[in-house]
Amino acid sequence: MGETIRVAIVGYGNLGRGVEAAIPQNPDISLVGVFTRRDPASVTTLHEATRVYPQEALFEMKDQIDVLVVCAGSATDLPQMTPLLAKDFTLVDSFDNHAHIPEHFAAVDAAAQAAGTTAVISVGWDPGLFSLNRALAHAVLPAGTDYTFWGPGVSQGHSDAVRRIAGVIDARQYTLPVEAAFAAVRSGQTPTLAARQKHSRLVYVVAAEGLDEVEQQRIEEQIVTMPDYFADYDTIVRFISAEQMAAEHAGLPHGGNVFRIGRTGLAEGVGLAEGAALAEGVGLAEGSALTEGAALAEGSALTEDAALAKGSTLAEGSTQVIEYNLQLQSNPEFTASVLVAYCRAAYRMQQAGQSGCKTIFDIPISYLLPISAEQMRATLL
Amino acid sequence: MGETIRVAIVGYGNLGRGVEAAIPQNPDISLVGVFTRRDPASVTTLHEATRVYPQEALFEMKDQIDVLVVCAGSATDLPQMTPLLAKDFTLVDSFDNHAHIPEHFAAVDAAAQAAGTTAVISVGWDPGLFSLNRALAHAVLPAGTDYTFWGPGVSQGHSDAVRRIAGVIDARQYTLPVEAAFAAVRSGQTPTLAARQKHSRLVYVVAAEGLDEVEQQRIEEQIVTMPDYFADYDTIVRFISAEQMAAEHAGLPHGGNVFRIGRTGLAEGVGLAEGAALAEGVGLAEGSALTEGAALAEGSALTEDAALAKGSTLAEGSTQVIEYNLQLQSNPEFTASVLVAYCRAAYRMQQAGQSGCKTIFDIPISYLLPISAEQMRATLL
Repeated sequence: MGETIRVAIVGYGNLGRGVEAAIPQNPDISLVGVFTRRDPASVTTLHEATRVYPQEALFEMKDQIDVLVVCAGSATDLPQMTPLLAKDFTLVDSFDNHAHIPEHFAAVDAAAQAAGTTAVISVGWDPGLFSLNRALAHAVLPAGTDYTFWGPGVSQGHSDAVRRIAGVIDARQYTLPVEAAFAAVRSGQTPTLAARQKHSRLVYVVAAEGLDEVEQQRIEEQIVTMPDYFADYDTIVRFISAEQMAAEHAGLPHGGNVFRIGRTGLAEGVGLAEGAALAEGVGLAEGSALTEGAALAEGSALTEDAALAKGSTLAEGSTQVIEYNLQLQSNPEFTASVLVAYCRAAYRMQQAGQSGCKTIFDIPISYLLPISAEQMRATLL
Repeated sequence: MGETIRVAIVGYGNLGRGVEAAIPQNPDISLVGVFTRRDPASVTTLHEATRVYPQEALFEMKDQIDVLVVCAGSATDLPQMTPLLAKDFTLVDSFDNHAHIPEHFAAVDAAAQAAGTTAVISVGWDPGLFSLNRALAHAVLPAGTDYTFWGPGVSQGHSDAVRRIAGVIDARQYTLPVEAAFAAVRSGQTPTLAARQKHSRLVYVVAAEGLDEVEQQRIEEQIVTMPDYFADYDTIVRFISAEQMAAEHAGLPHGGNVFRIGRTGLAEGVGLAEGAALAEGVGLAEGSALTEGAALAEGSALTEDAALAKGSTLAEGSTQVIEYNLQLQSNPEFTASVLVAYCRAAYRMQQAGQSGCKTIFDIPISYLLPISAEQMRATLL
């Protein structure tokens, strides 16, 4: 291997910390340091040896850095930062606002094309590994139906929305797949499911001290009727103490399942009506990994009754179920691990002259691993 | 779209038939015809309009064909046919003898490099989609443990091995994951599992007429003690009638699960001992899709108790579970569908001058779909 790929972390929240933890697991990657908008002296890193610099120092240290991991929020930071940084650096980001990916791509691509850098955007698990497996399943089963279930896990966006309600000190929102729907899909059925039939929402709230029951009912009402976030779901609200929140909801677990239920062996022409559109996977970012945490006390108790119907004849076709499933004890650490693997790809593409903006769809798996193509074929194929 | 990718099927067993069924689901791909070593007049195709040619006709029809799908066995046919055909054609095969992939790759690569064709080998689900997700999970979670469970489903190799025993008229072998081991792994545990603890084997046998109980016991004994195939597993043998075999075991279901249980957020250096080697996924080809069928009457009754342990702190690390799961009512039809998607990739790579032998590790997902990169980003990312 010899030389290592020199990676710098820009932004140091939970995600940046996860990248710091992930890099030592990759012997071909080394950490240059953390670059922050805060006072470097105020930042305590995971590893004592990690150097912390002010963000402006990035540009003067340019020749010491191969790839940046931009660890910032998708709402306002990444749309600004990624195109700007792509003018000077090959980089990876985790932009997760599905609806705005096309415009983010365009802005980053213009900068990266002009500069000859390589910018891999929207890396993580959704968008990211979920997207990759969604697309792969579409390619293999052109006639089929998609389902994405999220959770059990903490949705930061929903937790934040609750925190903005007057009288709420802290909140943690768990997204839970609805057991019956999940079991039906895993068994190969293709039900039409409203939002409410796919996910339910469980919210733990720490209310301001001294709020009476009437006030608590007002908070609960504001939560369960909140448009987009809760109104379309069955939502349970539980008031707990700050101590209980700290003790039982300190982690950031998440995960979910991407399904494609396809039909093969059909009589000619059947099943062609459905196009490649996937409205369903695009919505509020469930997987956002940028804040701090909680543990799912209940655990996940989905049961499976995956009995496929009896074998089929070619005339009636066969049901094929593709599922990709993540159960993550730490959402930010996992997202960070995906980012680090794609640093390797970004570096290699840049070295090979493949500049511009790239997504997970553009990158062969072989670019992600530190071993040779021969080793991959011998051990992983 | 305009022009279509013109695909020819070489070899017409269950897999070739599956390709014939899959092509009409892909509007950008058209079928030139089936090329067979048998007398074309003796071949009944799925669709009446499908043309059948003798295999030699391939070469004179070369300018009408963009991509071949070579649908033949991995034991003796593909090692001969793929390198030979790669001298004249861009092609895809489903070579599934894991241990011999490196030499198959070398032979095919030499031919394809010399000819400027593109040959994608070992396409299917294992090797294939399972390999892709195994490698992806390795890249994302460098510190972790792999598990592949196969089944419930029919293993052709094991069924064939039983058929070679004297007194056996027909046999169907179901590979079954062991429920307890499966549940432990899905819950994030990393047990060390012997072959017997991961899979059990259920064999249905039609014995020659008039065999007495002693003879049946001899057959059963020969099965359960057969090295490599059965000796290392708990195997149940059931004698049934030819009618029952035809009625209840006419399908070829299969599937399985690839897991990687990884640890992230560890103190520096922890978890680096484990390399990328994966002995476990390499063995007798379970997923081989070349013969005809049976239905899994018992269905799959694995239960899930996926409660993750409570949230973790960074000091102790977090457990992350990646799972890829296929439940296939028809193994050959599914494998055929994967092959057809990779025909699109082979064609595009050849058009782009990317010649030589390729595997699923070398091909970006974007090459597999008929839609544009913009559409992919807008609908699937």
